[in-house]
Amino acid sequence: MSEPIITLTTDFGTMSPYVAAMKGVILSLNPEARLVDLSHAIPPQDVRHVAFFLAGALPYFPPRTIHVVVVDPGVGTERAALCVELGTQRVVAPDNGCWTLAAKATHALHPTPVIRLTQPRYWRPHVSSTFHGRDVFAPVAGHLSLGVPPADLGEPMTDWVSLDELQPSVVGDEVRGEVVFVDGFGNLITNLPPDAGTVRIGDVEVSRRVRTYGEAPPGTLVALTSSFGLLEVAEVQGNAAGRLRVGAGAPAVLRRG
Amino acid sequence: MSEPIITLTTDFGTMSPYVAAMKGVILSLNPEARLVDLSHAIPPQDVRHVAFFLAGALPYFPPRTIHVVVVDPGVGTERAALCVELGTQRVVAPDNGCWTLAAKATHALHPTPVIRLTQPRYWRPHVSSTFHGRDVFAPVAGHLSLGVPPADLGEPMTDWVSLDELQPSVVGDEVRGEVVFVDGFGNLITNLPPDAGTVRIGDVEVSRRVRTYGEAPPGTLVALTSSFGLLEVAEVQGNAAGRLRVGAGAPAVLRRG
Amino acid sequence: MSEPIITLTTDFGTMSPYVAAMKGVILSLNPEARLVDLSHAIPPQDVRHVAFFLAGALPYFPPRTIHVVVVDPGVGTERAALCVELGTQRVVAPDNGCWTLAAKATHALHPTPVIRLTQPRYWRPHVSSTFHGRDVFAPVAGHLSLGVPPADLGEPMTDWVSLDELQPSVVGDEVRGEVVFVDGFGNLITNLPPDAGTVRIGDVEVSRRVRTYGEAPPGTLVALTSSFGLLEVAEVQGNAAGRLRVGAGAPAVLRRG
Repeated sequence: MSEPIITLTTDFGTMSPYVAAMKGVILSLNPEARLVDLSHAIPPQDVRHVAFFLAGALPYFPPRTIHVVVVDPGVGTERAALCVELGTQRVVAPDNGCWTLAAKATHALHPTPVIRLTQPRYWRPHVSSTFHGRDVFAPVAGHLSLGVPPADLGEPMTDWVSLDELQPSVVGDEVRGEVVFVDGFGNLITNLPPDAGTVRIGDVEVSRRVRTYGEAPPGTLVALTSSFGLLEVAEVQGNAAGRLRVGAGAPAVLRRG
Repeated sequence: MSEPIITLTTDFGTMSPYVAAMKGVILSLNPEARLVDLSHAIPPQDVRHVAFFLAGALPYFPPRTIHVVVVDPGVGTERAALCVELGTQRVVAPDNGCWTLAAKATHALHPTPVIRLTQPRYWRPHVSSTFHGRDVFAPVAGHLSLGVPPADLGEPMTDWVSLDELQPSVVGDEVRGEVVFVDGFGNLITNLPPDAGTVRIGDVEVSRRVRTYGEAPPGTLVALTSSFGLLEVAEVQGNAAGRLRVGAGAPAVLRRG
Repeated sequence: MSEPIITLTTDFGTMSPYVAAMKGVILSLNPEARLVDLSHAIPPQDVRHVAFFLAGALPYFPPRTIHVVVVDPGVGTERAALCVELGTQRVVAPDNGCWTLAAKATHALHPTPVIRLTQPRYWRPHVSSTFHGRDVFAPVAGHLSLGVPPADLGEPMTDWVSLDELQPSVVGDEVRGEVVFVDGFGNLITNLPPDAGTVRIGDVEVSRRVRTYGEAPPGTLVALTSSFGLLEVAEVQGNAAGRLRVGAGAPAVLRRG
């Protein structure tokens, strides 16, 4: 068996030593752990962004991967800290719903076991009020990677925070939804189905439908099926978010036909 | 023998889950693979930038390294997908010339074997039109790392896209070239030889020639031999690109003497 | 024994191939080395920033970790290159004091052995004037990871550059210090003790004292004990540095009581 894989996803950036400290804590507990950075560029405190991020990433990881996720506006408050089992993958994260869209994306068939982390013997001896990434989540991941069963980490929990998938509404021949994610190219991922029709983002109509970006000239606004299976609006070799001045939450409407 | 090294170079940034999904796909195929991030900050769709990047990086890697490169404005079009052998290193990338400057930098003595990826059994079962990084290049790298020979991945190819090295021209006592790369400090790497003389970038004359940055006071514009062996213009402890408001493609002229 | 861990901390960013080249050099010397990125987003040439960064990160790493640190405004000048032993961890870095706050943070009990790197047989054959990260520090780290003892790398040294910890001064009931670090959230870490009282940053009084961010509504300016143990000023779910338009070096005063 290969050494355990521990992934890291945070909104910390890497200008400050927070991610580095977490890596040190994990490697001090388990020098065999194999660290894999997923992102440290999640927009600050944006729980919905990281939830969508994880839904697009976790389904591709192998069994037994441990994911440490620290986007944690409620750090140090009464919000719970969790270890969640998604099949044989595990997520260690604050109880803010960040993992719940990924649970739907991985089609977990059985009720997901969720443990509330209450056993301080798996944490660092002194837990700060502002950095549970270093003091709780990283050491818990280290212990998990050494074989500690999730059940030893705390108590089963059933009333966790869950994010809703944003469902569009159908009104006549329109499907009314929104932009749910903006990627690094400025492509606008909506929650609309990839059906035929014209898309409207804010005031702008996008009628050109393509299979892929390269089918239209640079600068063209196009609609296409994103790699997530949802309707996406993009500017070919450009930045649609910048051009349309919209972000996550902007209204998006598909007029069918 | 140590586990295979697979490097990743993309223009995806890490705000979105694209890089993370690629890592998951590789690790699901080969949990022993050792992932090494080279860059996810290549400017979007900038094939010449990544070509220069790879020329500055790949010559330093050990034999048998597998490099996955996804800067792919033509994703989903008829552009080919390639596995290229550079000595015993391998590059998996779209056919846009991104690897061709690195091939020159590594002084491959023999004709470089290039395979066009045509065997879908080494891809993910469903290939999207917009994300071959996840669906083609990552799984191909995973299979390569497990020992699949490049020849099994598709058909030999000889008419790949090749980028020209940008050669300066000599006119009288001037060598006329351009800025070919701007690094993270704003240093301007040109395609001029590091010979004695005065450098002109746009309208600005840079007459101070140094061996290294610290030889002139902060704020001085200096010319020096870059670590690539080419002529470089820098502002000591500053940002020459920002100060001169130029980028890749700006004219650069060396007046010898 | 697990394979050696080599961490990388630079101000190179990842747009340019400098970090990638260093990784290739290390892996070519020791294909078993396990690379861990700490940061490539240190502000350019900001030695005090990286010193604070390392003080917040290195205490968490396991014995025998090798840290390569390249923030090097003096590259190619007469500044020395060092291998420093912090307990059983080792730092390979230019002699600019970048490691000295970390040495205090790790409470090294004994005089720290410091070697000046003078043995070119552990470097790359051709050493450029501008990129010792690739040509000196990376190969030295590779050799260290293969078991070369620090003493073989050069000569003992005792007169290295040391950064002062910035100590606040006490004047009456005031403690007068400064902002020493701004993190990725725009939180202002000061050198003030986390004692009761009102904090002034520039002209702005911050009277709200909390235990953690979530105790005050979004947008509130709060003071709290940072995870470094020092007084921190933050905007809840906002960016205090942006709001107050201050950075490292800004005056910070605690009025006790």
